Amino acid sequence: MAIEIYWGSGSPFAWRVLLALEIKQLPYQSRLIEFSKKGHKTPEFLKMNPRGKVPTLTDGDYVVYESIAILQYLDRKYPQIPLFGTTPEQAGAINQDICEVLAYIEKPIGQITRPLFSGEVAGKETQIREAAEALHQEFGQYEARLKHSQWLRGDRISASDITLYPSVTTILRAAGKPVAKAFDLGFLPLAQCYPNLTRWSAAIESLPGYARTYPPHWRQ
Amino acid sequence: MAIEIYWGSGSPFAWRVLLALEIKQLPYQSRLIEFSKKGHKTPEFLKMNPRGKVPTLTDGDYVVYESIAILQYLDRKYPQIPLFGTTPEQAGAINQDICEVLAYIEKPIGQITRPLFSGEVAGKETQIREAAEALHQEFGQYEARLKHSQWLRGDRISASDITLYPSVTTILRAAGKPVAKAFDLGFLPLAQCYPNLTRWSAAIESLPGYARTYPPHWRQ
Repeated sequence: MAIEIYWGSGSPFAWRVLLALEIKQLPYQSRLIEFSKKGHKTPEFLKMNPRGKVPTLTDGDYVVYESIAILQYLDRKYPQIPLFGTTPEQAGAINQDICEVLAYIEKPIGQITRPLFSGEVAGKETQIREAAEALHQEFGQYEARLKHSQWLRGDRISASDITLYPSVTTILRAAGKPVAKAFDLGFLPLAQCYPNLTRWSAAIESLPGYARTYPPHWRQ
Repeated sequence: MAIEIYWGSGSPFAWRVLLALEIKQLPYQSRLIEFSKKGHKTPEFLKMNPRGKVPTLTDGDYVVYESIAILQYLDRKYPQIPLFGTTPEQAGAINQDICEVLAYIEKPIGQITRPLFSGEVAGKETQIREAAEALHQEFGQYEARLKHSQWLRGDRISASDITLYPSVTTILRAAGKPVAKAFDLGFLPLAQCYPNLTRWSAAIESLPGYARTYPPHWRQ
């Protein structure tokens, strides 16, 4: 039975899994959930994932959710084209990168993107500015790491890159909204602010299958 | 060269790693950092971990930090007595548990324990009550899972149990503080509120080596 991936357009968490499936060249059935129709809150969906969240992956009878757990599952089940390296040391370093994205990137990203995407920025100005400052701190470190390296860990794309990439792209989209202009967030144009991150993003965006992972509603 | 683990008394994150080392019966050098003396901000420490945080583990020349990354490293390097199961499906499920602790447990725990441990609860009353409510929601699900099972996943202790346990113990300690009385948080006595979680905690606390993982300053 084929892998089925339930995802939503623009979910950075689901995007990680789509990238993993494409990079590992695994055949899969794409199940695009429409948030506006509450496709993630139907009884059938809640039976798979009681939290009603994407990404959720099924592989035959097996169900797993939470993006990083799905990456771990896929890499153990289908170890060809490894995403967590080939040695314990590489696996440790890649997991360390992932933990750092979860601990230091996801929160400020949400603090910026939620108000900017909804347009409800009133009273959130300080939060947005402080979150942007925290993000620049982190982005500066990635920028330095990518100076002499195409990928965040080792000489091939790994779960480190996959975990970070959708967050970077999401912040760029938020920073491009008209409501963001007043904040002068300092992420655009990325090529000027962070040339190495730009090169790295372009490398991911040129991967075969990337187009299938791109949020459909972002094209509109 | 031996494993060295840099930890701090009462850090729930470091506690996970100490439990893993004991369960996997790995010899290690315990390096207890004194936060009050800024042992985690010395130049030597920052060279290992630029964020100046515990836990940080060294294994010969190799350095890894972030608790979950350390667990992943240890399990790949020393696979005897596995903490992430023995099949891809088990690994996925255990990683899913871990992601859920990170996403749904750590934040409310911090929102309760920071004000209660510092005694600075003024203005935080609503935050504390809402966080307690969110935690009860989660604890209820663990309680149900532990009804017919000794451990959270499978028939032996795993990284699921190790990741959750220090958080549970930390919230109990916070709930026992005099300043917590006014909040009637509903976690104490645990044996009445959550008998299955109590049984599960007791099983962890009877593991060989558990005493070495217990926060020294909690004994005082």
